[in-house]
Amino acid sequence: MCRAADHTIHSAHRHFGWDNSIEPVQVIAPGETVEISCIDAGDGQLTSESTAADIPTMDPGRVNPVTGPIFVDGAAPGDALRITIDRFAPSGFGWTANIPGFGLLADQFPDPALHIWSYDRETLSPAAYSPVGRVPLRPFAGTIGCALAEPGRHSVIPPRRVGGNMDIRDLSAGTVLYLPVEVEGALLSVGDTHAAQGDGEVCGTAIESPMDVALTVELEKRADIAMPRFTTAGPVTRHLDAEGYEVTTGVGADVMEAARIAVGEMIELLAARTGMSPVEAYMLCSVCGDLRISEIVDMPNVVVAFYFPRVVLS
Amino acid sequence: MCRAADHTIHSAHRHFGWDNSIEPVQVIAPGETVEISCIDAGDGQLTSESTAADIPTMDPGRVNPVTGPIFVDGAAPGDALRITIDRFAPSGFGWTANIPGFGLLADQFPDPALHIWSYDRETLSPAAYSPVGRVPLRPFAGTIGCALAEPGRHSVIPPRRVGGNMDIRDLSAGTVLYLPVEVEGALLSVGDTHAAQGDGEVCGTAIESPMDVALTVELEKRADIAMPRFTTAGPVTRHLDAEGYEVTTGVGADVMEAARIAVGEMIELLAARTGMSPVEAYMLCSVCGDLRISEIVDMPNVVVAFYFPRVVLS
Repeated sequence: MCRAADHTIHSAHRHFGWDNSIEPVQVIAPGETVEISCIDAGDGQLTSESTAADIPTMDPGRVNPVTGPIFVDGAAPGDALRITIDRFAPSGFGWTANIPGFGLLADQFPDPALHIWSYDRETLSPAAYSPVGRVPLRPFAGTIGCALAEPGRHSVIPPRRVGGNMDIRDLSAGTVLYLPVEVEGALLSVGDTHAAQGDGEVCGTAIESPMDVALTVELEKRADIAMPRFTTAGPVTRHLDAEGYEVTTGVGADVMEAARIAVGEMIELLAARTGMSPVEAYMLCSVCGDLRISEIVDMPNVVVAFYFPRVVLS
Repeated sequence: MCRAADHTIHSAHRHFGWDNSIEPVQVIAPGETVEISCIDAGDGQLTSESTAADIPTMDPGRVNPVTGPIFVDGAAPGDALRITIDRFAPSGFGWTANIPGFGLLADQFPDPALHIWSYDRETLSPAAYSPVGRVPLRPFAGTIGCALAEPGRHSVIPPRRVGGNMDIRDLSAGTVLYLPVEVEGALLSVGDTHAAQGDGEVCGTAIESPMDVALTVELEKRADIAMPRFTTAGPVTRHLDAEGYEVTTGVGADVMEAARIAVGEMIELLAARTGMSPVEAYMLCSVCGDLRISEIVDMPNVVVAFYFPRVVLS
């Protein structure tokens, strides 16, 4: 889709946390297209010159800014926004970090680590993770959500029933997303753009990358949905799956613990096979490997599987 | 692969539960191929004439039989079996049931329900779920595992670190599976064959279908793996993904609860869109929809997504 945007919103119009008292930066009519400039989840504190030593000094008050909010004319509580994700204009720069205290295996990886990515913003060809491989890219918005009905400021970190920091890697170009509306005008904001991520975002970060996002926002009156839902335009893993997967499993009584085991097993497999350090393998898992629930009914144990695409190492 | 089997094991040689004192029915050498005849997870108690009224009268002592055990010459604790899943010869008959007290949403679906499937065992073309759609098939073994070191009889229902009832839908033809060995000879058994299933097996059953399975079993000495792992021969969802997915989400602090929400949302969506009853939608979700963990790090909330392939309804 190459429709020109009706409105452009610069990333200077960003906010931290959700708060329905924040003044809208733009009013749009249903059916209009908005081009939204998004800074990265580190609010520009990391650059191509940054190292792991810069992680601990980052200002935690500036994490995960979102651009907005956008007031959608006529939107009222009980409605849903129907958001067509039209296109992304990525920057070519990205970073992936292990941030102490954050991530699925935070207890096992206490030290900061940082990988800086450089990718071709035009071709989006797979980005090098030297020397072990290349990661296929597919940009998406990690955070896209509406304001909550509850007054006050709410952290942007947890995803919520109105969307927000969902980090769903298939919220990419062509997907149509439905978000519940809880306040007049919906108050839509977008940020946390990623050049690639696997299901789970296991180390806590993706390929964090500033980019512009174009969305067409429509309104479904009285849709009355309880949670976000979406429709993908087509297959979601064909950029990754051509050579199949290496898969590790976690079998256990708790889904979270089974997920931790599966990811730990994959880190061990990748480190043994490639010579990567465990934290390098952990970060690579986060940007391209997928957590799937293979079985959730054979009590008392479930199986969570971690799928790593072999094409990355070929 | 069309290699003839070195051994054939009939489904009469089946057992219920894992017990390392069960006498092996066959001794094989590493590298040999075995053709294993598997009865369905209901031990043949359901037929093409069965109805939901037959579910409550099934003998629970005959659930999930496995054919075996097979003694692999030279296998010892600390080794791994390297099992190449060569091929399946499906029967063309299958069933999917909602069994009271069993399944992810057992509290919401207390009544028995049954769907009988008939599919083409040669072409494996998508099987009709009349009148709403057709489900692409890909046979696999739901249960494949070795005996536990602990003596005594252990239920076959929960999957374990030595495999067992993993219900991983990608344990299909071409996959190479690695299982930890805990006893002399490994004592491998196989059963619970499925013509199709989605990640999660959310209603508790798949397309339960008797079939023959051919496996080539090799030995990796001192592999010392803690959990099952596997390598797929190629892509795992291309038989399903051509038209994209409808996706519902569950956002919440507990992964299990988020999974329950996501599946409940999809049942609501499918019932509204197609006119299916909720329990029909639940069973359809189990045989072709996938539970994925989209995000597991943005505490305190995770996102579990349920992916339903649109091709099923087209």
